[in-house]
Amino acid sequence: MQSPSDPMGEFDLIERFFKAGADAINPSPSIGLGIGDDCALIYPAPNEEMAVTTDMLVEGRHFFSGTSPELLGRKALAVNLSDLAAMGATPLGFTLAIALPHADSEWLEAFSKGLFSIAREFSCPLIGGDTTAGPLTISITAFGSMPKGEAIRRSGAKPGDDIWVSGQLGDARLALAAMRHELELTDADLKLIEHRLHQPIPRIQLGKHLRGIATAALDVSDGLLGDLKHILDQSKVDAQIWIDQLPKSVILLKQSPSIQNQYAACGGDDYEICFTAPKEQRDVIEKISRTLNLTLTRIGQITAMKNKLAHIDLYKSDGTQFNEDESKVLMKSFDHFR
Amino acid sequence: MQSPSDPMGEFDLIERFFKAGADAINPSPSIGLGIGDDCALIYPAPNEEMAVTTDMLVEGRHFFSGTSPELLGRKALAVNLSDLAAMGATPLGFTLAIALPHADSEWLEAFSKGLFSIAREFSCPLIGGDTTAGPLTISITAFGSMPKGEAIRRSGAKPGDDIWVSGQLGDARLALAAMRHELELTDADLKLIEHRLHQPIPRIQLGKHLRGIATAALDVSDGLLGDLKHILDQSKVDAQIWIDQLPKSVILLKQSPSIQNQYAACGGDDYEICFTAPKEQRDVIEKISRTLNLTLTRIGQITAMKNKLAHIDLYKSDGTQFNEDESKVLMKSFDHFR
Repeated sequence: MQSPSDPMGEFDLIERFFKAGADAINPSPSIGLGIGDDCALIYPAPNEEMAVTTDMLVEGRHFFSGTSPELLGRKALAVNLSDLAAMGATPLGFTLAIALPHADSEWLEAFSKGLFSIAREFSCPLIGGDTTAGPLTISITAFGSMPKGEAIRRSGAKPGDDIWVSGQLGDARLALAAMRHELELTDADLKLIEHRLHQPIPRIQLGKHLRGIATAALDVSDGLLGDLKHILDQSKVDAQIWIDQLPKSVILLKQSPSIQNQYAACGGDDYEICFTAPKEQRDVIEKISRTLNLTLTRIGQITAMKNKLAHIDLYKSDGTQFNEDESKVLMKSFDHFR
Repeated sequence: MQSPSDPMGEFDLIERFFKAGADAINPSPSIGLGIGDDCALIYPAPNEEMAVTTDMLVEGRHFFSGTSPELLGRKALAVNLSDLAAMGATPLGFTLAIALPHADSEWLEAFSKGLFSIAREFSCPLIGGDTTAGPLTISITAFGSMPKGEAIRRSGAKPGDDIWVSGQLGDARLALAAMRHELELTDADLKLIEHRLHQPIPRIQLGKHLRGIATAALDVSDGLLGDLKHILDQSKVDAQIWIDQLPKSVILLKQSPSIQNQYAACGGDDYEICFTAPKEQRDVIEKISRTLNLTLTRIGQITAMKNKLAHIDLYKSDGTQFNEDESKVLMKSFDHFR
């Protein structure tokens, strides 16, 4: 019995689009056996711990039908690398489970091109996977490692810590709003920010530099305020956020103050790192910012917990606090089941 | 700003159905941090290597719409544990990415009940995940470990090795055929075998016992002959299979010889372990069979590769070889894109 000569059967698909790309990336010495067995094997280095994260992207929910498959391939891995970055991990590899309506080789070629371009950039090879027929759905699980004990958790924030965020917030939400015709942007302006929606940059280098510096960190994927709440819940602290201090692009600054604040505070899809650190680390953090050529902005402060539920007090630049109605407008943190 | 009081938002979903179940399972000392951070943390034991596997189940493709969510929860993890078993790994934990058409708490309660029942059975806690809205799709990535160098790969089969398979083959396919009305089974007979389709048993204990004994192994998920081909390809060997020797249940033995052979040789969804081992290990393997109270059957032999493409020669019990037409009937190994 010879191998069935089905030119686009599952095994051919894997072989043609994924194995070659996977083989082209030089794995870390920790990767023992990639695609082609029941499992991939990882040999963790002594004195390292491993970080594992998983994300699922569904057509029509996380990306428009007809999205460039190349950009989609990049983004699917980028959002997982962003989670690794938020723990301070160095990427090791990833698995890909993908459901496809049909075996479209043009689509797959572009998707795998995008996927492997970012995989190469971050030395993060594909080590295993599963392909099946079904509504377009992409699930990636990514692995990283760091020296034992140096993972940056969500639970370490202390009253008095500064709250920082990398890059700028709200542009991904602004690009989405323009594409959905919720508001008008000039083509030129949209062009300047749409990469923030389609091509988030995982802040891997920042995460590594923050080991031993940040007391807590996470990546901002569902909106700053909603995500910050996870740090507060886990650290059992409250926070003050200076809404006007949130870093915004010149494009977002052209919008009304209400849109600016909503998008920067709760927009989602930013994939920046929000972290906390003691005041004594300000100089070090500003040096990291210069080294990486990446804006790092102080946007607030951790305070002691007043009640049993973590709470964020919002302040304007004139020092006045947001009232309840103003806060409500901002509380639209993205939730996948609303 | 207080926590949004959305009773079935994403975070509530995770909390309500998955975190509690996850916490109830005592993790191995290798699991450092489960659900609730950007990543889970794993501290691999010194001198261990890690195995990673991923599978995606799509409604309408891998299970009928309306399948019992409790059985589905069990099966979704079982098929991944089966891959760990085939490498000889001890389960450590798993991540779950799930797309749901809507947040149906009754469905989720049953699904998580099934999922955690098998997770508990195999001491394999949920350590992370992602939930989203979308067509019902379940993607699990499972982790296991074994002493360094003891993973059972697909590439170690040698000419002269016996080929073995655990349990019985073809019943899952037979149950599926009955449910699809491709053939008739009495209700009593269907009842006796349908668990083989819905509740495969990962052969974790067998995998562990085969460390250092088996030269190659894999789990039979797409049909014995198609799966065996992967061992042959990777080991660069051929094989002889004695079709009449394939272990079959009394229910399958009631069918025509042609159906018996097709279902046992190429049926799919068996989740038994096919492995190769030197003749000298026969006594040891028979002892393992008795210890585990699990049938292990010799079904053929590895032979030297005749051409560059791995080849399986099929034999009947009278010693005659299958002709080309007879072989073709059997070559219907399941492929997800056909």
